Amino acid sequence: MNQQIREAQYAVRGELAIRSEELKNVCPMTGVNLPFSRVVGCNIGNPQALDQKPITFFRQVASLVEYPELLKEENAEIVSRLYPSDAVARAKLLLKHVGSVGAYSHSQGIPHIRENVAKFISERDGYAADPSKIYLTQGASAGVQLTLEMIIEHNKVGIMIPIPQYPLYTATLAVLDANPVPYYLDESKGWGLTTKELQRSFDEAVQKGIETRALVIINPGNPTGQCLTEDNMREIIEFCRKNKVILLADEVYQTNIYRPKDRPFHSFKKVLKSMGSDYEGFELISYHSISKGMIGECGRRGGYFECEGLCDTVLEQIYKISSISLCPNVQGQIMVDLMVDPPKKGDPSYEQYKKEYDDIYSSLIKRAAILEETFNSLEGCTCNSADGAMYLFPQIRLPKKAIEAARAAGKEPDHFYCMAMLESTGVCMVAGSGFGQVEGTAHFRSTFLPQPELFADFCSGIKNFHADFMDRYRD
Amino acid sequence: MNQQIREAQYAVRGELAIRSEELKNVCPMTGVNLPFSRVVGCNIGNPQALDQKPITFFRQVASLVEYPELLKEENAEIVSRLYPSDAVARAKLLLKHVGSVGAYSHSQGIPHIRENVAKFISERDGYAADPSKIYLTQGASAGVQLTLEMIIEHNKVGIMIPIPQYPLYTATLAVLDANPVPYYLDESKGWGLTTKELQRSFDEAVQKGIETRALVIINPGNPTGQCLTEDNMREIIEFCRKNKVILLADEVYQTNIYRPKDRPFHSFKKVLKSMGSDYEGFELISYHSISKGMIGECGRRGGYFECEGLCDTVLEQIYKISSISLCPNVQGQIMVDLMVDPPKKGDPSYEQYKKEYDDIYSSLIKRAAILEETFNSLEGCTCNSADGAMYLFPQIRLPKKAIEAARAAGKEPDHFYCMAMLESTGVCMVAGSGFGQVEGTAHFRSTFLPQPELFADFCSGIKNFHADFMDRYRD
Repeated sequence: MNQQIREAQYAVRGELAIRSEELKNVCPMTGVNLPFSRVVGCNIGNPQALDQKPITFFRQVASLVEYPELLKEENAEIVSRLYPSDAVARAKLLLKHVGSVGAYSHSQGIPHIRENVAKFISERDGYAADPSKIYLTQGASAGVQLTLEMIIEHNKVGIMIPIPQYPLYTATLAVLDANPVPYYLDESKGWGLTTKELQRSFDEAVQKGIETRALVIINPGNPTGQCLTEDNMREIIEFCRKNKVILLADEVYQTNIYRPKDRPFHSFKKVLKSMGSDYEGFELISYHSISKGMIGECGRRGGYFECEGLCDTVLEQIYKISSISLCPNVQGQIMVDLMVDPPKKGDPSYEQYKKEYDDIYSSLIKRAAILEETFNSLEGCTCNSADGAMYLFPQIRLPKKAIEAARAAGKEPDHFYCMAMLESTGVCMVAGSGFGQVEGTAHFRSTFLPQPELFADFCSGIKNFHADFMDRYRD
Repeated sequence: MNQQIREAQYAVRGELAIRSEELKNVCPMTGVNLPFSRVVGCNIGNPQALDQKPITFFRQVASLVEYPELLKEENAEIVSRLYPSDAVARAKLLLKHVGSVGAYSHSQGIPHIRENVAKFISERDGYAADPSKIYLTQGASAGVQLTLEMIIEHNKVGIMIPIPQYPLYTATLAVLDANPVPYYLDESKGWGLTTKELQRSFDEAVQKGIETRALVIINPGNPTGQCLTEDNMREIIEFCRKNKVILLADEVYQTNIYRPKDRPFHSFKKVLKSMGSDYEGFELISYHSISKGMIGECGRRGGYFECEGLCDTVLEQIYKISSISLCPNVQGQIMVDLMVDPPKKGDPSYEQYKKEYDDIYSSLIKRAAILEETFNSLEGCTCNSADGAMYLFPQIRLPKKAIEAARAAGKEPDHFYCMAMLESTGVCMVAGSGFGQVEGTAHFRSTFLPQPELFADFCSGIKNFHADFMDRYRD
C-alpha cells in the first residue's frame, strides 16, 4: 500500500470525529446511559448538520432544475403557489444553459456559470476577471488538491503553509510526497503574519535543499480566524515575487467577516491588481466555496478557483486533468451560480433572501463573541477574537498531571483533553495538534455553529466539563 | 509543473472533443456556414446531453429533498398534484437519514444508503454484502482514482489493463507515475479475453522489473462492449490468485446488457463467492455508477465501490483518504439510493418507472444494432456486436493515401479520420489510438446514444461521409 497515504493525517475527521460518530449511534440504538443527550459536532464547519436553515431561494431553484416538468406551462399555476417567480425564471435560465443536471458538463464548468463568477469577481474587486481562467470544482478542497498536484513535480518540492493550518494542506502534501514548509502565525498578535517569519521559513527550507514553489495563505484564517490588512497583503505579494513562489489564496471564508469596519475582507486578486502593471505575470490562484459564508451548502460539493498570471500551457493542463474526472457535479455548479448572483433588490425573493442571510450573519457574530467569552473565562485558557471564518482556536495550559495522564494513554495532551470533553459532554472539537502549533503549547479548534437556542447550554456544558477536568488534574 | 500530469492523455475529452465544443459555439454565434446543423457528441456516454429523458421518479425525489418545505403538512395537497405519494414518502425517508442535502455526510457515504447498496448487491448476487465495506463516491471514476492511488506505492508498480481500454486508466496511471501492463483483447473473437494472454502480459512485466499489483477488468467492456462468461470469469479469478494481484472490476455497464440470454451479466463478486471458501481473502474491488445503465445521471457524479477481502487496516486507510475530500456530494449519494432501490411492483410510480426504463433499454438495443449494421456496411470497416455497454468500436482499414495525408498532418490515421468526420458531419467520435489498439490497426469508438428520431439521419450522415472520404483517398 502507498506509504504516503498511510502518513497523511486529517484530524478534522480523525479519531475524535470517528468516536463522535460511534457515540451518535450508541445513544438511540442501545440505550447505553450517556452523560449527555446529543452529540454536537464542532469539529467541522458543517452548519446545516447543526440545523442551519438553507437559503430558501437557492433551494427553490435547485428543486426546480431537478424536475423540469414543473417549468412547463401547464403546471405554471400550481407551481406559482409553491415557488416565487424569480426562482422559476432562474431555473429556466439555468436549464437553458445547462441542458440537464444529469448530463456531464464542460470539464472546466458550465460556461454561463463561469461568466457569472467572472462578473461577481470583477464587481467585488473592481478589476476584470476572465471566465476562461476560472475552474469550477467539487468544493474548494478539490481545487486545492488539483492545483497542488499540478505544482508538485518531485519530492523535493516545498509548499509554505501557516501553522496552525487547515489539515487539508498537510494531508494533501503527505499524499503527494511533498514538503510542508511551515511558517508560524503569532498568537500573541492576534495570529498575525509577518514577512520576516515568511522569509525565515523560506530560507530554512532552502538550507534543507527544499525547492519552495508556493505559499498558502488562508484568509480569513482557519483555524485561527484572523483577517489580513491590505498592507500586510501587499508585503506578502512582494515576498512571493522576490522569492518566486506562486501564491495560493484560500479565501473560502470571505463573507464570514465579523469586524467589517476594522478588518474588512480584501481579495488577493484585488490587492495584486491595485499594485499595478509591475506585477503583471504574478502567479496567483484563489479558491472559493459554497460550503461556507451564510450559504453552508457543504454536502453539495461546489466551489471554484481563479488563476491569475498562469501561462496558457498550464491552463490547458489544468483543463486536461479536470477532464479525467469528467466534470464537477452540476448541482454544485448551480449553487455557485446562485452564490455569485443572488436575488437583487426589487426581485420577489430579495427581502426573504436578505433576511435569511442577515439573520445567519448576525447570529454568527453573536455566537462567536459568546464562545470567545466562554473560552476566556476558563481557567488556564486564552482565546483570540475571530475577525472571520467559523472557528475559535483557544490555547489551553494543561496541568502537569493531565499531561502525564495523556502521555500514559499514549495521546497528545490536547487530544486527551478533547476526548475527555467528547466523552463527558458529547461536544466534538479538534485538538490543536491536528492543525500544528508551537511546540509545547496546546490548543483546540471549535466551530461556533451550534444552534442559537442551544448555545447557552452548549457553553455551560463546556464550562462545567472544564472545571471538573481541572479539579481532577490540577497540580 | 508535474511532468506526470503533462504525460497523461484523456482522449474522450481530448482534441476532438475540444474541437467539437468550438464547433458548437461557432454555429449559432457567428453564422459561419457549416456543412451540418448540429454537433452530435458521440465521444462520451452522456445520454442526457443527447436528450435522453431522466427517470421521472428519481428526479421527483431529488426535487423534493432539495426543498423540504414541500414535505410539510400544509403543502401536502398542492404537492400531491405535482408529485406521486411514493416520491414524497421516499424523500421524507431520505431526509430522515440524510438530515440536509447541504450538510457534509459521513465520508464513506450515508450509512442508510450504504445499507441499501448492500441489500441490492446481496439480492443481485445471492451472497451477503457488508455496508462497512462499501464506499460511496463521486462517480466510478473517483473510486477508481482513489483505489489506484492506494495501491500504487512506487514507480515500479504495474497495473494490468485491457487494450483497448477506457482512458481513465492510462491517464490515472500516468498521473500516479505507475506502469500500465497491457493485455490484449482478441478482436477476431468478439473482443475475447484469455488467461493465456493475461499470463503473457504479466510475465513480460516481470521481465521488465515491474511489480504487478492489480488487474483491471471492464465488464461489460468499454470501448469494446463484450460481456464475459462465468467460466471465463472463474479463470480470471484463478489467474489473480495464482499471481497475487488484486482484481479491480469495473462493472458500471452491468445493466446495459443487450443479449441477456446468451451473455447475461455476472458480477465478479458473485462468481468469486460461488467458488467457495478456498477463495476467502481474495482481494476484489468492484465499481458501479449512476451515470450509465438506463439512469444516465452523469452530471450528478455518483457511484460506489465494494471491497472484498481487504484487511481492516486498508479499509481504514480508504476511509481516511476519502475524508480528506470530506464526502461525496449528497445528491449523487441519493441517486445511488434510487438506483439500488427503485419503485417496486405495486408502488404508485412503478408502471411509469418500468415503462421509462424499458423504453430506454429497448431503444438502446435497437440503436446498437442499427449502428453496427451501418459500420459493417462501410467499405473497409468491420464491427463486432455489443453484448453490453454504450459503444461500438469498429476497425477501419484506411487507404494508404489517407494514412500518408494523416502523417503529413502529424496525426494518427484514425484521429485524422475522426477529425474529418467531425468537420464534415458534426459527429464527434474518438479515435482508437486514444484507447489503445494492436499496432498498425485503426479503430474509433462511437456511442449509440443519438436520439432515436434522429438516428437514421445520423447513420446516413456517417455513410455519406465515409463514401466521400474513401473516394477522396482510395488507393
